[in-house]
Amino acid sequence: MEKITPRQKSYTDWYQDIVLQAGLAEYSDVRGCMVIKPYGYSIWERMQQQLDIMFKETGHENAYFPLFIPKSFLSREATHVEGFAKECAVVTHYRLKNADDGSGIVIDPEARLEEELIVRPTSETIIWNTYRDWIKSWRDLPILVNQWANVVRWEMRTRLFLRTTEFLWQEGHTAHATKEEAVEEAEKMLDIYARFSEEWLAMPVIKGVKTASERFAGADETYCIEALMQDGKALQAGTSHFLGQNFAKAFDVKFAAKDGTLQYVWATSWGVSTRLMGALIMTHSDDRGLVLPPRLAPIQVVLIPIYKNEEEKAATIAKILEIQKKLKKANIRCKSDTSDTHKPGWKFSEYEMKGVPLRIAVGPKDLIHQTGEIARRDTLTKEFIPFDNITECVQKILDDIQIHLFNQARNRLNDNIRPVETFEEFEKVLDETGGFILAHWDGLPETEAKIKELTKATIRCIPLDWKQESGYCIFSGKPSSKRVLFARAY
Amino acid sequence: MEKITPRQKSYTDWYQDIVLQAGLAEYSDVRGCMVIKPYGYSIWERMQQQLDIMFKETGHENAYFPLFIPKSFLSREATHVEGFAKECAVVTHYRLKNADDGSGIVIDPEARLEEELIVRPTSETIIWNTYRDWIKSWRDLPILVNQWANVVRWEMRTRLFLRTTEFLWQEGHTAHATKEEAVEEAEKMLDIYARFSEEWLAMPVIKGVKTASERFAGADETYCIEALMQDGKALQAGTSHFLGQNFAKAFDVKFAAKDGTLQYVWATSWGVSTRLMGALIMTHSDDRGLVLPPRLAPIQVVLIPIYKNEEEKAATIAKILEIQKKLKKANIRCKSDTSDTHKPGWKFSEYEMKGVPLRIAVGPKDLIHQTGEIARRDTLTKEFIPFDNITECVQKILDDIQIHLFNQARNRLNDNIRPVETFEEFEKVLDETGGFILAHWDGLPETEAKIKELTKATIRCIPLDWKQESGYCIFSGKPSSKRVLFARAY
Repeated sequence: MEKITPRQKSYTDWYQDIVLQAGLAEYSDVRGCMVIKPYGYSIWERMQQQLDIMFKETGHENAYFPLFIPKSFLSREATHVEGFAKECAVVTHYRLKNADDGSGIVIDPEARLEEELIVRPTSETIIWNTYRDWIKSWRDLPILVNQWANVVRWEMRTRLFLRTTEFLWQEGHTAHATKEEAVEEAEKMLDIYARFSEEWLAMPVIKGVKTASERFAGADETYCIEALMQDGKALQAGTSHFLGQNFAKAFDVKFAAKDGTLQYVWATSWGVSTRLMGALIMTHSDDRGLVLPPRLAPIQVVLIPIYKNEEEKAATIAKILEIQKKLKKANIRCKSDTSDTHKPGWKFSEYEMKGVPLRIAVGPKDLIHQTGEIARRDTLTKEFIPFDNITECVQKILDDIQIHLFNQARNRLNDNIRPVETFEEFEKVLDETGGFILAHWDGLPETEAKIKELTKATIRCIPLDWKQESGYCIFSGKPSSKRVLFARAY
Repeated sequence: MEKITPRQKSYTDWYQDIVLQAGLAEYSDVRGCMVIKPYGYSIWERMQQQLDIMFKETGHENAYFPLFIPKSFLSREATHVEGFAKECAVVTHYRLKNADDGSGIVIDPEARLEEELIVRPTSETIIWNTYRDWIKSWRDLPILVNQWANVVRWEMRTRLFLRTTEFLWQEGHTAHATKEEAVEEAEKMLDIYARFSEEWLAMPVIKGVKTASERFAGADETYCIEALMQDGKALQAGTSHFLGQNFAKAFDVKFAAKDGTLQYVWATSWGVSTRLMGALIMTHSDDRGLVLPPRLAPIQVVLIPIYKNEEEKAATIAKILEIQKKLKKANIRCKSDTSDTHKPGWKFSEYEMKGVPLRIAVGPKDLIHQTGEIARRDTLTKEFIPFDNITECVQKILDDIQIHLFNQARNRLNDNIRPVETFEEFEKVLDETGGFILAHWDGLPETEAKIKELTKATIRCIPLDWKQESGYCIFSGKPSSKRVLFARAY
């Protein structure tokens, strides 16, 4: 039986097979919560490290706020609580005890909390309650803080990485003296997310703003990056919110401005999560398994000896360890698999499945010719390279894979943005090819809702920096000032 | 009013003043939960980075397991649940709703969980429930996994960093084929904790094992490192547990051994937490504020210009930025405070309070002599050093501070380990000087409990690698084969 269901057969099964077979994550016995396995976590760690560098380069500092949010805090901002109330894990008690009838361990009814605590679904409320004490004057601004944390949103239908009850993320929460500065911050962080996606995940994205109905609960404007998966569905890969003065008002956070007046503080928040792992997998992988961009690959090169007898074994392994030493010296992450438990063929497919970008095999003939066979995971092509300048070769090919994966995904994205002029055309494209559809929309939430109801497609974003063009709404026929981007989405 | 209460007046207030005034952490509006502020978090980040390197060097990988633990899992290991049941935060519902009477947001009674979820106080149970699927044969062993996570233990009396309801930590969970290998792992990780404490926190520790009554709930043996705070109280800084086959039996985790038999897996777990921040503060700081070892200091050198007019201002700031550039090139973490809002004197005390190891002040005369005044935070001494080879000087002094802080703390520790022969002597030393007391104990839990009841002193550990010596229990007079280490503790 095949380990990985082909995409043509079932894209959903293909995705889950890769996550499980490549050892990235698995479901736990806790509903909707996943275990991120070491191989998957090491990819996430690389994402974290790079994002953390980019945040710090732009003046942000990390801090840590409580996991629990008093129920009353969540209720302070009306739109916010409406958005999150239906998916909250609620702590009501703080002690267990032995049941009086000896039947086991039960909640101690005497240890009921006076006020219920919510496990944070996001931290705006607890953080703005804290900022009230931190901000007195314009001198205390801006506050540029980020937090790496776990959050919980009680999802009814979950999928590994893409939608889980608990997930890992970072959430930036900044405070500013002016609206302009806050908007600038929200846009700056969107740019960082876009750059990170393209340069590290090799995943091209479209930057835009959400329509009112797709905004973060409590935001005045939600910026987003949208990516395209291989099955033609869109995936929101990161969001950055301009929160206006909504949370400052809800938590009474004012500052003395330079002119002496007391003013409410302006806010942003922005986040990306372990969902990026799902986006990464669905952007590059194929029917053989995971494909990883070299910059995020925990193992960039795997070295495998080919031998038939003890003499050949000793000689090929010696060569492989020599190459490994050279590569490690050049900070290339590599692994030698010299184990006896499996044949080379098995090892080849195993590391292909795990998405290792390059494989080098060394057999007895290679020792004579002083070359090794190098196989690319992305193109599945092989070539022989001389041992002499192997480090330079490997580095060059790794760089090339990173670029090739990005170009391939960018071409797919570009080929799958289709302008349509009528609703019939819209439905046809959606069903036949999927992808992004550029269409005129009258700007009315009712029209948006109706289109969603009929087609399951949503407005992914109103693209930033794209040319304006007037026309007529594909659904209502009313005038429209620009096209928006529709798609079915994860 | 003094910002920091002197130690002589109140050690407790002194500690809290430093945590608050140096901007390390503060209480949140959630009972017992703290906010770790950016300056405090950046010290914790440095600890994390170094520990993570040391774990990886010894073959460990990171992973992530769910925040929630089903109540029934916790109950599987009898001793374990007894140890944690009384301090568990319990999730009972997964949804809020608008109250029918319009009074606000309430728990939705229809969204009650079938089985309550515990917010993890530690993760042995959820992890061993997962390991059951990971371990089939001896080939799957060892598993060497670590997790960086938040945990919750409902504490009635909390103190910033030292004892909080939610805290951050790492927890290693390893699985082994033999008892010997597991014991070796537990001891290896204890050694890593000891080395980290001494080389990075500049905090000497005593390695030992806990008595049965002080063991981790579910462990066969608990190893620990114990440090001595300035007020003569001990602080447990890290623990490493040999868990025997207890969790393997509770979660039915067996492996096929090389000889074909099915055997239970052997386990360890080990952790250090944000409590180390408290230990760090109480080991080195003084009445002026925080004192930080250079290896963990977010800012190692602060540069302050001294000027009376615009011309001097421009010249001194230019010099300071020039020095900063040089130091940064040598990877020395430094900051220039060129702000106009405060006088140099104010800045001097501010950075003293924040524990910055070195201060360099540059005034107009220094520009003439081509020297700067450099002040050490640990000894409070000053000297003039030539600008010429300032990088080498600074590096040398930073190294010296790291060593000096360790030696100072080690001397205090050594001076405060006192052997006593009688219970009267024991009580006298406890009350007059505190510190560690080396005394004979008959090995009986009753004796240990009685001593604790009478004196509030506990057996911190049975020191490892110390010479054995027979004698008689100070309390019961019964024979004893070695001395143990008593102290009052945090």
